[in-house]
Amino acid sequence: MRFSSIIDCLEDRTMLNAFELVETEDMISFSAGFPSPESYPLDAIKDSFDKVIEKEGREAMSYCSTSGFRRLREIIVERMERKFGVRYDVSECIITSGSQQGLDMSGRLFVNKGDVVLFESPSYLGAVNALRAYEAELVSVPTDENGIIISELEKAFNKYGDRIRMIYVIPDFQNPTGRSWSDERRQEFMEFMYRYDVPVVEDAAYSELAFDMNCRKPLSRFDKKGQVIYVGTFSKTFCPGLRIAWICARGEIMDKYLLLKNAADLSSSAISQRQMAYYLDHYNLDEHIRGICTLYRHRRDIMIGAIEKYFPENVSFTVPEGGLFVWMTLPEGKDSRELLRRAGERKVAFIPGTSFYPAGEKCNELRLNFSNMSDDETEHGMKILGELTEKYLDNMK
Amino acid sequence: MRFSSIIDCLEDRTMLNAFELVETEDMISFSAGFPSPESYPLDAIKDSFDKVIEKEGREAMSYCSTSGFRRLREIIVERMERKFGVRYDVSECIITSGSQQGLDMSGRLFVNKGDVVLFESPSYLGAVNALRAYEAELVSVPTDENGIIISELEKAFNKYGDRIRMIYVIPDFQNPTGRSWSDERRQEFMEFMYRYDVPVVEDAAYSELAFDMNCRKPLSRFDKKGQVIYVGTFSKTFCPGLRIAWICARGEIMDKYLLLKNAADLSSSAISQRQMAYYLDHYNLDEHIRGICTLYRHRRDIMIGAIEKYFPENVSFTVPEGGLFVWMTLPEGKDSRELLRRAGERKVAFIPGTSFYPAGEKCNELRLNFSNMSDDETEHGMKILGELTEKYLDNMK
Repeated sequence: MRFSSIIDCLEDRTMLNAFELVETEDMISFSAGFPSPESYPLDAIKDSFDKVIEKEGREAMSYCSTSGFRRLREIIVERMERKFGVRYDVSECIITSGSQQGLDMSGRLFVNKGDVVLFESPSYLGAVNALRAYEAELVSVPTDENGIIISELEKAFNKYGDRIRMIYVIPDFQNPTGRSWSDERRQEFMEFMYRYDVPVVEDAAYSELAFDMNCRKPLSRFDKKGQVIYVGTFSKTFCPGLRIAWICARGEIMDKYLLLKNAADLSSSAISQRQMAYYLDHYNLDEHIRGICTLYRHRRDIMIGAIEKYFPENVSFTVPEGGLFVWMTLPEGKDSRELLRRAGERKVAFIPGTSFYPAGEKCNELRLNFSNMSDDETEHGMKILGELTEKYLDNMK
Repeated sequence: MRFSSIIDCLEDRTMLNAFELVETEDMISFSAGFPSPESYPLDAIKDSFDKVIEKEGREAMSYCSTSGFRRLREIIVERMERKFGVRYDVSECIITSGSQQGLDMSGRLFVNKGDVVLFESPSYLGAVNALRAYEAELVSVPTDENGIIISELEKAFNKYGDRIRMIYVIPDFQNPTGRSWSDERRQEFMEFMYRYDVPVVEDAAYSELAFDMNCRKPLSRFDKKGQVIYVGTFSKTFCPGLRIAWICARGEIMDKYLLLKNAADLSSSAISQRQMAYYLDHYNLDEHIRGICTLYRHRRDIMIGAIEKYFPENVSFTVPEGGLFVWMTLPEGKDSRELLRRAGERKVAFIPGTSFYPAGEKCNELRLNFSNMSDDETEHGMKILGELTEKYLDNMK
C-alpha cells in the first residue's frame, strides 16, 4: 500500500508507546504527564452527568455545534478574564478534543511542507509530533531559566526569515523542564514578535498549576496585534477523561480553526461539554485546583527529596514551582535511553530527553513526572532509578 | 496572517453551518443526518455512566490508550463477526472520535497534494470536506441504483492511473441518496479493485439501519487483499453525543492510523468508551436498533406520503430501504439552493444537492433527512416545502 509522504515524518513512537501502556498496571511510571487520579472529584462528576442527562439528556446525547457548547465557552472566557486578565469574546473561543487537537489544527492552519516552525529547546513532544505531521522543518531556539532567549530567536529569524510560519511556546511550568518564563521575558518576547507576521501558539496546559496559586500573565495578555493563539485545557486541572480543551484566537483566525474542526471531527462530545459546564456552574474548580496544587507540591518535594537521597551528585535537576515535571540532566556524553532500558527491566519508566528535541540533538536528559504516583511509589521507584543511575554513571567513567 | 494552502480548499460551509445551527430550535430541519433524540435510551446511558464511575472512576476519567479501550474494541470485533461475518483481530480495530475522524485520518494517511481521490457521485459532503483538506483532486464516479458503475470506474482508472490514491464509498443506504449497492455489484467492485493497489475506505455509518433488519454484506467481507478500511460508528445506531466510532484495517495500515491518531488528539474519551462498553455488555443494542429501524421506517413513510401529497409530479425521489435520507430531484435546470433560500424564510431547512458533488456539478437535487423530526413536524414542513416547490417550478416554466 502506498502512503502519503507525512507518514515518514512520524517515526517517533515515544508518545504513542507511553499511551499504549495506560492499561497495564505493574510499572512505576514517571513517564506520562498524567494528573493524579485520586484527585478526581468523582461524586461531583457523577452528579454533573446525572443532572445533565435528567435535564437535557436529548440534547446532550446529540451532536454539538462545531464551535462547542455555548455555555461552556461563556464560562471559559469569563474565567480567563478573572484569572488571567485576558478578555475574549465567546465567538473567539472554540472547544477542542484535548489541547492536542488544538496543536494539530494549528499545524494544519499555518504550516505547509517545508515551512519552519520554531520551538523552545527542549519542548513538548506531543507538539513536536503534531507539527512533524505537517512536514515542517522544526527548529529549536535555546532557552534559559527565564524563557526563550531573544537573541537566539533573532538569530533564527535572521536565518530562516519568511520561511518561519509559526512559533510554539509553553511559558508556564514548561513541559518538559518545569520552568516558567519571567514577566520581563514575556514582554520582551511579544515585542520582538510584533515585528513579524508569525502566529504565536501559547500552550497554557500547566498555567493554573502554580504551587503559590499566583498564575503568571499569559502571552495573550501582552498581545496587541491578535497574534497569539491561546490553547487551554481542563485535562490537567480537572481530568483528561472528558477530552475538553479550548482555543482562543482573534478574528479571522478563529473562523479558519472552525472550518478545520468541522473537517476533522464535526464536533466534540456534547455530553462531556455540558457535563463540564454543569460542574463549573455548580462546583468550585478553583478550590479543586488549590487541592491538587497542594498535592503536587508535596509530590514534587517527595521526588526532589528522593533525588537528593538516592542520586549521584553529578546529575542536576530543576525544582519546578508548578506543573508536573522535573527535568534531570546526566553528565555530558551519557544517554538516558540506556538508563531507561535498564529501568524498564526493574519496572520503572520515564521519558528520555531526546524525544523533546525536534532534531534529537541531546540525549543526556530525562523527564520525570511527579503527579501521578503515590508517595511510596515515588520513593521506591526513585530509589531504584537512583541506584541504576549511580551504576550507569560509574560504569561509564 | 498567512495561512497554509489547504485553507483555500475549505470554502464549502454547508456542513459547518448545519452544525452551528444545532443549538437553535425554531426550524423544521431536514438538513443534518441526526438520529432521533427521542430514541436515546437515557436510563441505560445514565446507568452505564454511573456504574463505570462507581467501579472504575479513576481509570475512566484518565487518559485512554491511543488505540482505545480494549474491552470496547473486543465487543466491536465480536459484533462485526456476528452481524456481518467479517473477522478482525482486536489489534486491527481502533477507536476514533466520530467516523469523521476516521475519514480525516484516511485522507492524511493516503493523500498527498494533487493526488486523486475517487467518490461515488453524489457522496457524503463531510467526507468531501475531509478530503478537500488534503488538497486532493476529487473525482466523482457515476452510480446507478445498484451502486458505483464499474465501467465508469474503469474509465477513471484509465484516465488518472497511478494518481488515484484512495476510493471512498458508502455501500449501505448511501448518504445522500439512500440507495444500497447490490451484492453482485459489491463483488464485482472488489474484483475490479484487486487490480490496483488503492485503498478502499468503506463508510458503514448506516449499515445497521436496514429496515428489513437484514444487514447487507460489507465490502470488507469480499476483501482478500486487506485493501478495505472499514469505518464504523455508534453515532447513528446509538447516539452521536459520545463520539464513539472505529476503524478496522489490516496489518501495517492500522499501525499507521495509530500514529496519526496519537498525533491528532492522543486518545478518545476514556469515560465515553468505557460507558459504551458497559452498555454493550449489559444492554441489548440490537434490540435498540430494531426499535429505531421501526421508527425510521415509519418516518420515511410519513415523508414519502407527504411528498406524494404535497409535491408536484415532476420531482422524483428515492424510497430508501434503510438509513436516514430521501434524495429528491427537481427538473433539469432548477436549483435547489434557490428553493432553500425560500424555505429558510418559512423556517424549513434541507441540504441542497450541489454540496454532495465534489465539483458542484449538479444543483437540481436535495437531501431530506427523515429521522430527526416528529410526524407532525415532517408533515407540516413537507407541506410548506411542497408548496414552495410547486411555486418555484411553476415560476420557472
